[in-house]
Amino acid sequence: MKKLTVALAGVLAFGLAGSAVADQYEDAIKYRQAAFTMVKGNFGPMGAMVKGERPFDAAAFAKFAENFAALAKMSDDGFIDGSDMGDTKAKPEVWEKRAEFDAKMKKFQELADKLAVAAKSGDLGAIKPQFGAAAKTCKACHDDFKNK
Amino acid sequence: MKKLTVALAGVLAFGLAGSAVADQYEDAIKYRQAAFTMVKGNFGPMGAMVKGERPFDAAAFAKFAENFAALAKMSDDGFIDGSDMGDTKAKPEVWEKRAEFDAKMKKFQELADKLAVAAKSGDLGAIKPQFGAAAKTCKACHDDFKNK
Repeated sequence: MKKLTVALAGVLAFGLAGSAVADQYEDAIKYRQAAFTMVKGNFGPMGAMVKGERPFDAAAFAKFAENFAALAKMSDDGFIDGSDMGDTKAKPEVWEKRAEFDAKMKKFQELADKLAVAAKSGDLGAIKPQFGAAAKTCKACHDDFKNK
Repeated sequence: MKKLTVALAGVLAFGLAGSAVADQYEDAIKYRQAAFTMVKGNFGPMGAMVKGERPFDAAAFAKFAENFAALAKMSDDGFIDGSDMGDTKAKPEVWEKRAEFDAKMKKFQELADKLAVAAKSGDLGAIKPQFGAAAKTCKACHDDFKNK
């Protein structure tokens, strides 16, 4: 059911009535790039706190982690079939090795959820390993599926 | 507490270590623009379903509404003090009439939450008025606080 919903979201989110097909792909690319801008906007300050570059603020961290988890679930919606061309850093492998891409996205979403749970504890010691695990899922996917 | 967290998020989300002040404002502008791209990406297909331009799909609608509500709560984080200059359509009134802006944002967030609750019912008759009410909060804020 989850999978069906996500698939439908991918098809429908960018299929506005009256839009040309090319616009639909362009909108999908813009949507996924916006998702990553927001993911980064929440990841960055969490990373700074984990590294001690910023004072740890439990309430702020919990909000970033909550946003991060919600955004993770929207991060794959824009990778619709046909949106492999144009102004995108997505490698063709996203579509060529779709099952692998989907599995890595799922892992990212799961670990983002776990980070959000850990963040609610307010305990930096519990948060650090979960942050590290979530960060690894970003890199794992970028290495294989995103051009520099 | 909610208010404190949001305020902290605004300050911290874009205050990455090592960033110049100007970069921080630019990042805040990019973040809020990304939020609006995503809000629109979920609002659009809900609107098409409500208007009957697309077949109503309860599961897909519920996911769009859930995303919309989550994104609404991130939509004001980027309007930090000092980010009124640069590549932005935000009017100076955002900062000049901040209490009014914040109140309109809060209304948007509340009605996005109500839409998400209605969407879970899967009943288009219950969804339509909530969608209309949420849509009005977009327009109310854009009219006063956003340049065309």
